[in-house]
Amino acid sequence: MNFANFAMRRKMKKNQSKRPLTFFFLCLFVAIFFNGSFLFPDESKNRPGGYLFMIGGGHRPRSLMEKFVSLASRTGPPRVIILTMASSVPEETGPALVKEFKELGVEKVDYYHFSREEALKPETSSFLEGATGIFFSGGDQSRLTAAILDTPFHEKLLDLYYQGAVIGGTSAGAAVMSEIMITGEEKRKVEEGQEWTTIEIENIITSRGLGFIKEAIVDQHFLRRRRQNRLFSLILENPGLIGLGIDESTAVLARPDGKLEILGESQVMIIDARQALVIKDEKGKLGGLNIKLHLLLAGSTFDLKTGKVATTLKPGVK
Amino acid sequence: MNFANFAMRRKMKKNQSKRPLTFFFLCLFVAIFFNGSFLFPDESKNRPGGYLFMIGGGHRPRSLMEKFVSLASRTGPPRVIILTMASSVPEETGPALVKEFKELGVEKVDYYHFSREEALKPETSSFLEGATGIFFSGGDQSRLTAAILDTPFHEKLLDLYYQGAVIGGTSAGAAVMSEIMITGEEKRKVEEGQEWTTIEIENIITSRGLGFIKEAIVDQHFLRRRRQNRLFSLILENPGLIGLGIDESTAVLARPDGKLEILGESQVMIIDARQALVIKDEKGKLGGLNIKLHLLLAGSTFDLKTGKVATTLKPGVK
Repeated sequence: MNFANFAMRRKMKKNQSKRPLTFFFLCLFVAIFFNGSFLFPDESKNRPGGYLFMIGGGHRPRSLMEKFVSLASRTGPPRVIILTMASSVPEETGPALVKEFKELGVEKVDYYHFSREEALKPETSSFLEGATGIFFSGGDQSRLTAAILDTPFHEKLLDLYYQGAVIGGTSAGAAVMSEIMITGEEKRKVEEGQEWTTIEIENIITSRGLGFIKEAIVDQHFLRRRRQNRLFSLILENPGLIGLGIDESTAVLARPDGKLEILGESQVMIIDARQALVIKDEKGKLGGLNIKLHLLLAGSTFDLKTGKVATTLKPGVK
Repeated sequence: MNFANFAMRRKMKKNQSKRPLTFFFLCLFVAIFFNGSFLFPDESKNRPGGYLFMIGGGHRPRSLMEKFVSLASRTGPPRVIILTMASSVPEETGPALVKEFKELGVEKVDYYHFSREEALKPETSSFLEGATGIFFSGGDQSRLTAAILDTPFHEKLLDLYYQGAVIGGTSAGAAVMSEIMITGEEKRKVEEGQEWTTIEIENIITSRGLGFIKEAIVDQHFLRRRRQNRLFSLILENPGLIGLGIDESTAVLARPDGKLEILGESQVMIIDARQALVIKDEKGKLGGLNIKLHLLLAGSTFDLKTGKVATTLKPGVK
């Protein structure tokens, strides 16, 4: 060791002795100016404060809709906005849904049906002022995204969701919730009644949905219309996402705590291929080894992050 | 400790000292007279030496049938017996299958179609003398079991399977293989095209199958006819059994080593609820938490006992 080296090491030691104090002031600075969020990000801050209420179509049990209303009433009397853009007969769908909510005791409820041109105007979003519940009607999900995807109105809906509103929909109105949206079409030429008979790559047609839920792909009328093949196809193509196959008269409630809760009269099939080994043959048929599957009834929950399931029903079928 | 107790303990000790010799002679006796099988049962002895070849219906790829023939040729030139009792048009089905096997190079191939009355006669089993392959045609599985279940002919088929023959069948001819056989009917009243739209208890009608495979329930035309709901219903009612949903142009080969091997052009869905938590709601809808599901392509295997899967395909879908 030469002298220069020795001197440098002494200097370093001197500096080190000052560090605790420097670190203390740095922490104080961070604590005051960034509220700690820079060093210790609070995950719950990036999570929505509201609820998603995704109904698989079909008859809506009264108890299901009462739950929607109660979630929209958390901060006071509810204000519900119905959007009928998915429907081809909004003049029927709109009033019927308004009537349904009025019968559930909601006084402030209106339906809106407008074009993309309207959705692009900033003033259109004023419809949503004070809304505590949004409800998308059934119909064709592509009509709804064509009207509002990436408009200021869409932005406002996302804001409302993050701020605490309950965003619900049935059938097409549930399909729009995910980022990858099933359009209801497939590339294979099929005869009527012969839809969704394969599990293969690049067959199921999707487009961008409204993106309220980013961890899952939502399908509906699931058992009733036997749509397993199409959801398996998509999940094996996108194994990082959870497949949510919601049957009729049944809902998945996405809660602010990151858990999905099952409500209603039938089942939700949850396909979790995140730990699976996904395979494909030379003709594009898809396979998966060790897929986790849950068939959940009302009273069950699924944790989107951990994949853990729980139920209030007691085990056994007898 | 009193004296009596002390004496007893000494006596026990004395007896113990004689034990090693007694045990040695016992072992020798067992080894000679029972060939060890009483103390150390050799599981492979209770297992069939033959193969089950269950095809999910539809077009049969030539390579699939070549595999059947090669398995029936393990001990020499094959002798194939076709049974057409499931078919409503045996005079068409029989000759067509005979032709198919002849084109595959099988010289000794015949089809038989007979009533239960015939099957009960011991001499009917003489058809099967020297058979190395049995093939059940498609049609209605209940017609086949009505003709042969629990007859001497059925017994002889089971013997052949245990002795090394390959027992195959397509569609209804695959459905008959399991102990619990799906008949193709359900209890719910359903309109045409609306079959199998629920997963519920006591709906799917089953009867006793031929029982070649006891660990599974076999379903066929599986993806093509979107039969997931009916197989899930049965497996959740019988979670100790494995659900085998075989698609068209695809086969499950049950091998003597206890593994199932996938052959052919499409997928087999394997539902393993043995470790699942099965639930039921008050209306009889069934649920299951943590069901294992495998969607297997040709080149994959499933171990019936351990539930382990393997594949020769490389992971990934791109």
